[in-house]
Amino acid sequence: MSKLKPKTPKGMRDFLPSDMYKREYVYGVVREVFESFGFEPISTPVMELEKNLMGNYGADAEKLIYHAKHTEGKEQLALRYDLTVPLSRFFAEHENELPLPFRRYHIAPVWRGERPGRGRYREFIQCDADIVGIKGIAADAECVSVVYAALTRLGFQDFTIKMNTRKLLTGVGVYAGVPDDQLGELYRSIDKTDKIGLEGVAKELADSGMAQEVIDRMVGLLGLQTDDKDAVLAHLQAEMGHIEIAQEGIQELQDLVKYTRAFGVDDANTMLDFTMVRGLGYYTGPIFETVITKPENLGSVQGGGRYDELIGLFRHQSLPTTGISLGIERIIDLMDQLDLYPESVKQSPIHVLVTVFDDNLLAESMKLAAELRNAGVSAEVYLDPRKSLGKQLGYAEGKGMPCAAIIGSDELAQGVVKLKRLADRHEETIQRGDVAQTVQAWLDQ
Amino acid sequence: MSKLKPKTPKGMRDFLPSDMYKREYVYGVVREVFESFGFEPISTPVMELEKNLMGNYGADAEKLIYHAKHTEGKEQLALRYDLTVPLSRFFAEHENELPLPFRRYHIAPVWRGERPGRGRYREFIQCDADIVGIKGIAADAECVSVVYAALTRLGFQDFTIKMNTRKLLTGVGVYAGVPDDQLGELYRSIDKTDKIGLEGVAKELADSGMAQEVIDRMVGLLGLQTDDKDAVLAHLQAEMGHIEIAQEGIQELQDLVKYTRAFGVDDANTMLDFTMVRGLGYYTGPIFETVITKPENLGSVQGGGRYDELIGLFRHQSLPTTGISLGIERIIDLMDQLDLYPESVKQSPIHVLVTVFDDNLLAESMKLAAELRNAGVSAEVYLDPRKSLGKQLGYAEGKGMPCAAIIGSDELAQGVVKLKRLADRHEETIQRGDVAQTVQAWLDQ
Repeated sequence: MSKLKPKTPKGMRDFLPSDMYKREYVYGVVREVFESFGFEPISTPVMELEKNLMGNYGADAEKLIYHAKHTEGKEQLALRYDLTVPLSRFFAEHENELPLPFRRYHIAPVWRGERPGRGRYREFIQCDADIVGIKGIAADAECVSVVYAALTRLGFQDFTIKMNTRKLLTGVGVYAGVPDDQLGELYRSIDKTDKIGLEGVAKELADSGMAQEVIDRMVGLLGLQTDDKDAVLAHLQAEMGHIEIAQEGIQELQDLVKYTRAFGVDDANTMLDFTMVRGLGYYTGPIFETVITKPENLGSVQGGGRYDELIGLFRHQSLPTTGISLGIERIIDLMDQLDLYPESVKQSPIHVLVTVFDDNLLAESMKLAAELRNAGVSAEVYLDPRKSLGKQLGYAEGKGMPCAAIIGSDELAQGVVKLKRLADRHEETIQRGDVAQTVQAWLDQ
Repeated sequence: MSKLKPKTPKGMRDFLPSDMYKREYVYGVVREVFESFGFEPISTPVMELEKNLMGNYGADAEKLIYHAKHTEGKEQLALRYDLTVPLSRFFAEHENELPLPFRRYHIAPVWRGERPGRGRYREFIQCDADIVGIKGIAADAECVSVVYAALTRLGFQDFTIKMNTRKLLTGVGVYAGVPDDQLGELYRSIDKTDKIGLEGVAKELADSGMAQEVIDRMVGLLGLQTDDKDAVLAHLQAEMGHIEIAQEGIQELQDLVKYTRAFGVDDANTMLDFTMVRGLGYYTGPIFETVITKPENLGSVQGGGRYDELIGLFRHQSLPTTGISLGIERIIDLMDQLDLYPESVKQSPIHVLVTVFDDNLLAESMKLAAELRNAGVSAEVYLDPRKSLGKQLGYAEGKGMPCAAIIGSDELAQGVVKLKRLADRHEETIQRGDVAQTVQAWLDQ
């Protein structure tokens, strides 16, 4: 047979066991935090009907969508591009079984045929939590809080959750006197503040023909010091409170600040950022974005906000919805970089290698392993008796197992086992019935 | 906007939270059992290069494979059809990082465009555990043992793991004098024993022109009583030991019996079944299949066996490999049917609904929820203060939450909380600092 070439598709990855333990740990912590707030897991098919995906993301994005079909299939399918349109479809399909408010989380892969690059993949995990059915900003505050709780539980300390609202952005435009048809352009410019600074934004707007007076009024607001959240919101209130949309935005941010505090979010980890826009067109209210700030600005690990129209895609009437997406792929990378994984994740979950003396004693090694497992200790039997004891111990060390148990004919006759701690080569001869207990004691050290 | 129709693709399923809790429980138990034997998790992309999948499954199967591509993509991709070819590809691609023996498990969806039917889906989860690099039957016995351990841990009692080997099947053919070119047909007939009985098989073979004497010799062997495994293997040894391939097969089954016993597998849950063939062409040695036997024969929940050639697909030289696949979708259905889920899985994982008295007290409810979470109790805040207390409690009951916490202005002033146990409507007024502890005590009852 002509051999096939072992190769993963471009931009897609295999994960080895050592990767998997880390990923499962992160998913596990996040799941636990989500569930502690009342978010519940759902799952949807990897593929959706093609016509339900196309038309929702814009032409550029849609070029990246994977289309799929089997030879005799009649349905045109497409692999999901995100977890948000599937949520809308899911909700509409099952709403009779879903009491409101409906909080769901979904941790699952999505596919985008982008040019692969550092940290950019064609298959990657998204991790979304959303609340459907609550108009009040309490829901947005809960989303911010769940991000705070998840990052804190994972061990991150130096991060900032930036908060803004689309309504305030619109209000700023109105206040400054930006004509309606220039609002989109205004947002696109403001969105670049991170990269080019407010002066850069001002210059760009001036180049585009916006009146200098308008620009000055706006940049003055966008550049306000926000360390004292209550003070800056009071200032905005005085300045722009007469503009209805601005007033609504200010009230949203006041509620967001009040409720995140009630949820126990440390004020030092949140920030009002009036220049934060977030690209996606579908946001209608508060928006959030989280960056890891130390040892340096390591980029965004979370995005989200309120999108009150999207659930209406598959439904006569839309429902208020707000949510967040954790950038779990980047979080996983940062966990390594910042050394946040607990020791238990770095070690092998296999506690003991039971070595094999020879063919005749193989069954005895299996019995010992079964005894250990029944006592709650995970135990792998080395199944190849032809390999030397040294080779077998080397295998255990290579895989990071903490202990090895040796049972030869002498040990068998005496009812004992030689137990080796591989880190320091400490060895003890132990009554067979006490092996599990000793392993447990060594693990707890 | 014209509304889209909320519809999942044919044969593909959404899972609601109540489904997900059950599925996650089953995956969790299986993962734990796999890891306790030293099997390690891996993950591969959902899509493989099309040319790496096609040509491995036969023409009929290949019609069912989903082909995928994004608009500007150059690679022709296909969604995986099983987890075995991806294992071969994965192993060849990473073998330098994978010490032998390599035990991996993989729980992940696969796609087949079959006609959907009862228990047959186009997207379904496979759950495979395999050992690469061990020639000895000890590895096969470990695979049988891990099936036994997983089913037992899930609560199944009445199941039978049938064991046979391809070598003995060949040996029976040689012994009976079946011409080589009729062996394939012979297997196909024997494979029908479950449905048409040995008499039916005999008739079919006679109709196909096989000599009656040959048929009689064979049916005599296939129909041997196998209750006493050691006795029947000794009988086969005396009868067929002179035929080399039969001798090898008998030795394999002797080892399988000896080693599964050593691993602690109850002899009552295993059976030698000389008529068990298993369809897949790639098996080369021992084969296994598990059926749930009570309250009636509920069908197969596991298949597997040794396939020493398959790893060679992507590699100059093949390596001995054996493995099992748990029919996790059917297991999940049977768990419900046999009522095997523990109470904790049937209940909501959200312990407390913190109700909301009015807008002014919403922040107080959030604070209480945060206090409970910090004490390890999961707590959902009802975020809509306009809803009556009755509606809020109804929501909690509908979702199966065990408790509700009520905090109004009186309770706030007195530093207490009204805690309600929803199952029996028992209510207590409790110091705020003691709420978590009381919830925990009620949960433990």
